[in-house]
Amino acid sequence: MKIAIMGFGTVGTGVEEILYKKRKDLLKNNFDIEIERILIKNKNKDRNPHDKTLIFTDNFDEILNSSVDTVIDVTSNLEETYERIVKLIKAKKNIVTANKAVVSKYFEVLNELARENEVYFSYEASVAGAIPIIHPLMEEVFFNDISEISGILNGTSNYILSKMEREGSSYKDVLKEAQDLGYAEADPTADVGGFDAMRKIRILSSLIYNAKIKEDEIFTFGINNVKKSDFDFAKDLGYSIRLLGKSSLCDGKINISVMPTFLKDDFFAKTFEGTNAIKVLGENFKKYELKGPGAGKLETADAIMRDLLRILAKREIKTFYNAENSYPVENNLEKKYYLRCEKVSDELKNLISSEKILDENHHIITKKLSLKKLLHAIENLDDVFLAEIEEEI
Amino acid sequence: MKIAIMGFGTVGTGVEEILYKKRKDLLKNNFDIEIERILIKNKNKDRNPHDKTLIFTDNFDEILNSSVDTVIDVTSNLEETYERIVKLIKAKKNIVTANKAVVSKYFEVLNELARENEVYFSYEASVAGAIPIIHPLMEEVFFNDISEISGILNGTSNYILSKMEREGSSYKDVLKEAQDLGYAEADPTADVGGFDAMRKIRILSSLIYNAKIKEDEIFTFGINNVKKSDFDFAKDLGYSIRLLGKSSLCDGKINISVMPTFLKDDFFAKTFEGTNAIKVLGENFKKYELKGPGAGKLETADAIMRDLLRILAKREIKTFYNAENSYPVENNLEKKYYLRCEKVSDELKNLISSEKILDENHHIITKKLSLKKLLHAIENLDDVFLAEIEEEI
Repeated sequence: MKIAIMGFGTVGTGVEEILYKKRKDLLKNNFDIEIERILIKNKNKDRNPHDKTLIFTDNFDEILNSSVDTVIDVTSNLEETYERIVKLIKAKKNIVTANKAVVSKYFEVLNELARENEVYFSYEASVAGAIPIIHPLMEEVFFNDISEISGILNGTSNYILSKMEREGSSYKDVLKEAQDLGYAEADPTADVGGFDAMRKIRILSSLIYNAKIKEDEIFTFGINNVKKSDFDFAKDLGYSIRLLGKSSLCDGKINISVMPTFLKDDFFAKTFEGTNAIKVLGENFKKYELKGPGAGKLETADAIMRDLLRILAKREIKTFYNAENSYPVENNLEKKYYLRCEKVSDELKNLISSEKILDENHHIITKKLSLKKLLHAIENLDDVFLAEIEEEI
Repeated sequence: MKIAIMGFGTVGTGVEEILYKKRKDLLKNNFDIEIERILIKNKNKDRNPHDKTLIFTDNFDEILNSSVDTVIDVTSNLEETYERIVKLIKAKKNIVTANKAVVSKYFEVLNELARENEVYFSYEASVAGAIPIIHPLMEEVFFNDISEISGILNGTSNYILSKMEREGSSYKDVLKEAQDLGYAEADPTADVGGFDAMRKIRILSSLIYNAKIKEDEIFTFGINNVKKSDFDFAKDLGYSIRLLGKSSLCDGKINISVMPTFLKDDFFAKTFEGTNAIKVLGENFKKYELKGPGAGKLETADAIMRDLLRILAKREIKTFYNAENSYPVENNLEKKYYLRCEKVSDELKNLISSEKILDENHHIITKKLSLKKLLHAIENLDDVFLAEIEEEI
């Protein structure tokens, strides 16, 4: 079986490492996998694959016109990769991708294309690294109404939040440290701005509700203005702060958001560093919870391997996603929120349940209200930090 | 597609309920599943299925000679069910079973038979109810060395332990309460004696190590003589007590046991009531953790449904288990243990690290030593309570 890989960064080298090191075990189980070509940007860069005979190319057409039937995408590019995946699917090649940006933005198009061209489109690696989540959910949706999913879906922001919480450090210092250690990128916007988590909750939610959710419909509030004083305030009330992606389907309406959350729940509160954690609520099993590494070389490659073997053995689930449900995104459920702001608008005043002024900042716990209503009340305020407060069960 | 079900207790009614209620969704995805026959013991008992046209029979041959290609086993009988499964496999019928006693005792025979007869043998429901564990592990073993697995695998004993811990009640009172509520059986031996957890750790371990592990090689110590004083002693040291099934493969030797464990780790310590929790350690992902309902009507039926649909869509993994590795079970890893006993043997004296006498009982923390050595030292002592002490990481 011949495959190609697009990209040879951290995850790509992980896939190559597993394929090389486990060749004997794979062969024993009839997986004779050969990497025909690896697409890279810079042919002059020194590569150090385990298999020294590997062929690298910077010419996409060599992949497109090759006889491989499955292509692994481990690039992080958005539009260019999307266009390439479209071409590959039209050329009847199965796709295994870890590229959450592409999967989230083009979920409908790519699923539709895969169905039309009768190829597999697999993206386990796009959410929560090694944690088996996408495929198990795909198996469930035929006979289980999944009503809610929530999770710590971005390792970088969890690293920062849990470190700030434990060590009482400032956002700036921890971010710097994370960047020095390679946990955060030079431009950390996708992670700390919540956009990476937003893509993941979009993918998970669309899959379980079989409904299109546009990225810009997802209220996304990152952690880039979190302060030590937020942790102090939260701690006084017994809460931790974590960035949660969350969606629920209730009375035909989807509530979906990414935002910092005050929580006491041990499962999330005891999730530290780059670990991801996910809760799934469904009618058949009430709740189950998963926790594990959300990123990493072999961790993400492991998820790719699962997809790849399923495809090669023709055991993969054919895409059934067709966005046939159209549930409006409303964020109408009523919850309490924490706000930190310098000024308070008149509209906000009426929504306050309790308030504490520290360092000239209002630290507010709101009454129970919808996110929609809250956002309206604060739309003209600057420098607000916002967190949902988890309901006590 | 025609199927048959053997047994119509809690889980059997759950499967029927899901098939009935989700018929439309299943049909839309090409799962036209018809229950041809349900095998029951007592034809005169009043049944209340959702589909009133269902045919019940007490004649196994009607199932064996039917045209169904898959049989769901939700009986709790050991030898009779085993013999029936053998006949069914020989008659080329796929098996989906929740019967952990059969799966554990006859793991090698049934896998071998399934291979010979080219049928699927699926048992996701035999371990940890709705938590997807068996199938994800099956997907991993081709390319990931899983080195350790541990878990709270029995809901009844976890219910009792967590209740004793939280409420300071006696074993006897909590067991009685659990029996009244239907969480524990009239004869609770399989649960509180650790045998149910033993079967589950045998299944999981054999699968990941591809090695036969005889049930009687697994050191199994239950919770039936745990006392309030054990919790008091543990609590003073900051520990919770949970019944853990655990195995690891290290230097070609398998350490495997079921026993009460002193632990601080939040993942297990914060697992309450009937919830199951599992940790998987593998070279590709270090660790991932799963938590969810370990039993229940729809919970277990959900796991059966996953297996069933995989089989009907020909997406199931063909059995690859052939016990080709023969690793000795040695329990040679050195750990600390807690012991409560009335008397102390000379051999034990040398193994004590610290000791406290309360109510004429020795409460002992041992030095680091192998389980093998410990068991030798206490073999002539009566009324011992024993717990492994989790290592600090």
